[in-house]
Amino acid sequence: MSTIPFNKPYLTGKEVHFIYQAVASGKISGDGMFTKKCHSFFEKRYGYQKCLLTSSCTDALEMAAILVNIQPGDEVIMPSYTFVSTATAFVLRGANIVFCDSRSDRPGIDEDKIEALITSKTKAIVPVHYAGVACDMDKIMDLAAKYNLFVIEDAAQAIESYYTGRDGVKRPLGSIGHLAAFSFHETKNIMSGEGGMLVINDEKFIERAEIVREKGTNRSKFFRGELDKYGWVDIGSSFLPSDIIAAFLYAQLENIDDIQKKRIALWEKYMELLAPLKDKFSLPVIPPYATNNAHMFYIVCHSIEDRTKLIAHIKANGILAVYHYLSLHKSEFYENKYQGPELHETDRYTDCLLRLPMYYELTMDDVEKVCKTIESAQL
Amino acid sequence: MSTIPFNKPYLTGKEVHFIYQAVASGKISGDGMFTKKCHSFFEKRYGYQKCLLTSSCTDALEMAAILVNIQPGDEVIMPSYTFVSTATAFVLRGANIVFCDSRSDRPGIDEDKIEALITSKTKAIVPVHYAGVACDMDKIMDLAAKYNLFVIEDAAQAIESYYTGRDGVKRPLGSIGHLAAFSFHETKNIMSGEGGMLVINDEKFIERAEIVREKGTNRSKFFRGELDKYGWVDIGSSFLPSDIIAAFLYAQLENIDDIQKKRIALWEKYMELLAPLKDKFSLPVIPPYATNNAHMFYIVCHSIEDRTKLIAHIKANGILAVYHYLSLHKSEFYENKYQGPELHETDRYTDCLLRLPMYYELTMDDVEKVCKTIESAQL
Repeated sequence: MSTIPFNKPYLTGKEVHFIYQAVASGKISGDGMFTKKCHSFFEKRYGYQKCLLTSSCTDALEMAAILVNIQPGDEVIMPSYTFVSTATAFVLRGANIVFCDSRSDRPGIDEDKIEALITSKTKAIVPVHYAGVACDMDKIMDLAAKYNLFVIEDAAQAIESYYTGRDGVKRPLGSIGHLAAFSFHETKNIMSGEGGMLVINDEKFIERAEIVREKGTNRSKFFRGELDKYGWVDIGSSFLPSDIIAAFLYAQLENIDDIQKKRIALWEKYMELLAPLKDKFSLPVIPPYATNNAHMFYIVCHSIEDRTKLIAHIKANGILAVYHYLSLHKSEFYENKYQGPELHETDRYTDCLLRLPMYYELTMDDVEKVCKTIESAQL
Repeated sequence: MSTIPFNKPYLTGKEVHFIYQAVASGKISGDGMFTKKCHSFFEKRYGYQKCLLTSSCTDALEMAAILVNIQPGDEVIMPSYTFVSTATAFVLRGANIVFCDSRSDRPGIDEDKIEALITSKTKAIVPVHYAGVACDMDKIMDLAAKYNLFVIEDAAQAIESYYTGRDGVKRPLGSIGHLAAFSFHETKNIMSGEGGMLVINDEKFIERAEIVREKGTNRSKFFRGELDKYGWVDIGSSFLPSDIIAAFLYAQLENIDDIQKKRIALWEKYMELLAPLKDKFSLPVIPPYATNNAHMFYIVCHSIEDRTKLIAHIKANGILAVYHYLSLHKSEFYENKYQGPELHETDRYTDCLLRLPMYYELTMDDVEKVCKTIESAQL
């Protein structure tokens, strides 16, 4: 029986060729030729003020935590339904994480529940654009302005996704908060195995970001000829990836339109075929202010029992579907530290959300097979 | 005029082929096929108890700082003549760095000056095997035992280098301290552009190291089938490199004997040709307990004026030679925090040490040209 995996990394065909070029250039440490090409690509296509490739989205979030100067005891508000790195990046700087529940219609942070969590210690809000679908950024930026907070968009899944605010302007995700973090892990639309990027939308962070990314040194200035030697001026780490990784990523970026077109067609096919089953589980909701980047197709079952049954049923038919995050506030690491209320929606997505196969080389026939198999399950 | 660069990354010819294999395997995120091959290579060849590839040596040092549980106010003793990351990795966890002077015969930490720096707050000693030449580890391990301290070897430059202690046993560097960090930056003997590795010699750190490297989750156990789901259990970061990087590295490792043989021959040629000039500057010293991995060939001028003159003279002849570290205790970041004595040897190496071209594709003729050019300088 042929199987349909949950994810399969897609190669445009040029990755290894570009890696060969990077290697031939004689510079394959960080900030080589392809890193610069990637930075330019993002800055031109999305109008981001400054982009810096990192080794991972985790690294980009850690840079953000350093840049907004998180100190022990500072509070950072984020959803509990997110990847561990959203939280650890701030915990490493001593932050207390204040977990906010998800919306009832989708797993993004419930924007209307944030304000009640703000205290005098709150330093930042980290909205996560789950499945690449925009949070309602107007509400979040209003709170940030009102309480003088930083907003760091966790845009790990949100490449090529947009938000249209009340001013009617359509902005790419990652361009709205003060800082944003993207992932190019192999499970993402555009990927390089491991990889990430920090986007800086507030000019005041740029100079320090370059320093923090270069182990706390002013080496970037030195390489531009602005200094005659470089030294240790700040805290930092080695956040920059090899140019081999950037070369791989650039091959993907050149094909972003093709990749997105294909993924969106697959996503819409899922939506069309599963719509008749909407009493058996919930389907994804794209609000009017958001676009869909087809990062993920998920359904939300009515119960964990339904989900367990469904996973087993479709696995028996050679299809791999997987659940996603576990409520961070109930994790072994945070359980004893968490003092907030029950987060019912978070727990519901933890128990009931199921991600279906979604990757470039998935075929329409595969999607039909998946949907028919789901239809045949006894829910 | 043809030029001789300071460094040139060497390719064995198989790097891109292995990258292609990694990509074809369908898994290019961390801990894929080639990461496992690299781990096995190191564990077999050097008898290291546990190896974990990281994105950089900085990352490996940061993991070490987390594993020995550095807390704000803890003191860590290290040389001031080292790369910034040796210090920042511990500063990120809140450590106060206690800088120790270098030896008078070479830039390694002066083992006899360490004990006077130990206080009740000292948590760890970080010897740096400068130029791949072993510190006198017996002395350091004795102090660690006496005062109950951790030893983290900064073995960034020390691959394929050994130390023979008083028991007569020849041990690879990186196998002696509780933990050790290696670099595979493109300037190293064996490289992958950016890259590093943590070596664990004390079994009690292994389980936590896997967790810390996977963003504070027990994912490694999950992937081995020891858990039915994984979650957030500790602090951590994304320290693991893409398998693309590991594939590149593995191609280099397969050729380690050839690479080392060539470098050592070049190093010995330098030594032979420069020996007659030993009144004009000092030559490297390899103590009887250490082997030479030919990572670097450096000379130490009698003054900064001599060095400046020499750099200019050989540059005018198309040869690039470069100085190295700047005393960390005098850096912009640490100057105001440093309260110790003058570190005269450290400052001398900062001012007077000069690194000569050294890379696999350097020829014996190149070495002769460099040495003749040095000979012709007016010092």
